[in-house]
Amino acid sequence: MGEFELIRTLFRPLAEATWQDGVVLGPGDDCAIQRVPPGHELVFSIDTLVAGVHFPAGYDPVRLGWRSLAAAVSDLAAMGADPVCYTLALTLPDADPGWAKSLVGGLEEASRAFGIALAGGDITRGPLTLTIQVHGTVPEGQAIRRSGARSGELVAVTGPLGGAAAALSWLEAASPPASAEGFLARYHRPQPRCELGRQLRGLATAAIDISDGLLADLGHILEASGVGAELEPGRVPRNFDGTQATLDQALNGGDDYELCVILPHSALEQLPGSVADSLWVVGKVCAGSGLRLMHADGVIEEVSVPMGYDHFRGQ
Amino acid sequence: MGEFELIRTLFRPLAEATWQDGVVLGPGDDCAIQRVPPGHELVFSIDTLVAGVHFPAGYDPVRLGWRSLAAAVSDLAAMGADPVCYTLALTLPDADPGWAKSLVGGLEEASRAFGIALAGGDITRGPLTLTIQVHGTVPEGQAIRRSGARSGELVAVTGPLGGAAAALSWLEAASPPASAEGFLARYHRPQPRCELGRQLRGLATAAIDISDGLLADLGHILEASGVGAELEPGRVPRNFDGTQATLDQALNGGDDYELCVILPHSALEQLPGSVADSLWVVGKVCAGSGLRLMHADGVIEEVSVPMGYDHFRGQ
Repeated sequence: MGEFELIRTLFRPLAEATWQDGVVLGPGDDCAIQRVPPGHELVFSIDTLVAGVHFPAGYDPVRLGWRSLAAAVSDLAAMGADPVCYTLALTLPDADPGWAKSLVGGLEEASRAFGIALAGGDITRGPLTLTIQVHGTVPEGQAIRRSGARSGELVAVTGPLGGAAAALSWLEAASPPASAEGFLARYHRPQPRCELGRQLRGLATAAIDISDGLLADLGHILEASGVGAELEPGRVPRNFDGTQATLDQALNGGDDYELCVILPHSALEQLPGSVADSLWVVGKVCAGSGLRLMHADGVIEEVSVPMGYDHFRGQ
Repeated sequence: MGEFELIRTLFRPLAEATWQDGVVLGPGDDCAIQRVPPGHELVFSIDTLVAGVHFPAGYDPVRLGWRSLAAAVSDLAAMGADPVCYTLALTLPDADPGWAKSLVGGLEEASRAFGIALAGGDITRGPLTLTIQVHGTVPEGQAIRRSGARSGELVAVTGPLGGAAAALSWLEAASPPASAEGFLARYHRPQPRCELGRQLRGLATAAIDISDGLLADLGHILEASGVGAELEPGRVPRNFDGTQATLDQALNGGDDYELCVILPHSALEQLPGSVADSLWVVGKVCAGSGLRLMHADGVIEEVSVPMGYDHFRGQ
């Protein structure tokens, strides 16, 4: 057995340990097979993480496993989809069984936490890169898209923002201060909002996961929906275990994997208390276009929304 | 618009130009959406091609587009699945619009030829790598797996083998000899056997696409099915436009993307003439294990089938 064959065998138990009902055939054939329940649609997204670009080159493989899968599953949460399974295309510069076992450990923990099964994959030699495609299902026609926001509706977020950005400067520190711990937890172990996404089906008119920063990602919703918005920066939550991210980190920092959600006032009242308590209303949707920041001191700041809404982005 | 944003916009027309009915929502949201027809299952496979490992570093991008998609679709053909859509995760060292346009051109040509739509993707900066996940559908329970081969059945292949391996030494030649043209065509423009795969549903008991070489890939079927086989090397087709690949290339060369199919005698008789004419019977399945080559001079050669059938391989 070649050294890469050995690495491949490490992933077999992961597929077996995380099996989900929708998976008819897992790894080991030319293709995997999934059954989509009657009256449901398949929802899927592919994402690549490159060492040195999307995570530090020497990043801990257990954390890498969790974080890669969490970031991918977050796209399912934004559509209101229930996670089912995923494929992993892993490119490795060399066959290091210890490193691979740790990665499998992190993936297994995340797979169990999110209820998603490894259904197939490909392992090849090359620069360190992980590509994950996640599969979920939604009742037909109920996926929450980016394009449904309407004037008068509320803009909400599902948790504090800016933590992952605030963590960046501490990532490689041997002994980060206690005040950085909340930030670091957010970077290393993001929590995709699947349960919240599912409860927002039929109530939210648009949603996106915040991977590029609140302003940029809200901008994608505005472009796709053909509307504008007013945001109150003072209402954006940014407290992590008692330490605040800066306003810039909260508005522009990526990788938090909370959701930005648009919903009418009436929907907010229909939500169970536990769900409504997880939503911070931070602004409202307006007719027209553009994004305005309504600062507490009365200053109004125009934000340039990324031009040329890009249909090959954000999957 | 950043330079990578510009590259992303090149893929939008490709998604629109190749649209297929099963795609409910294409690129541009957090996820894409696919509808799987009632009574059908989703069949999917992910594959990565790394520059310098799976194709030459300076390989023509039009050819790269065709070849990458053809190799991926070949996995659907091996399951007897009908192609529907695919996602593309593309990692690029720099944003070269001319190169990207050529890649899109090759992908579009292949997408139309195979009837498969671009449904989503991700473009990131990093070492040149293409990861493609293809989606197809089959009537429930009718996918052709590797594990159904039974003693007494026939081993067949769907076309001449060894051409892509024979092409390798000519790939970077400025003016290859006319005798190499058949080989080069096979390397640059492999033709996945989707129509044949579909017609073999319910008739073939096992199939695999020949990406690692006939002996290795037949070995995967034998391992998965728990049987052995006798192969007659003299019957393996290896003629490309009048030039023969060597026997070693035909038995061990990869990247031809023909199918190796197992089927009972009776199934061969039920096939339409055009399909039966596309099958070369090269051996038979036996009880027990192992793969024996029955040479024309009476010599019997035992081939070591790769041990430890690997469930994380071949997707």
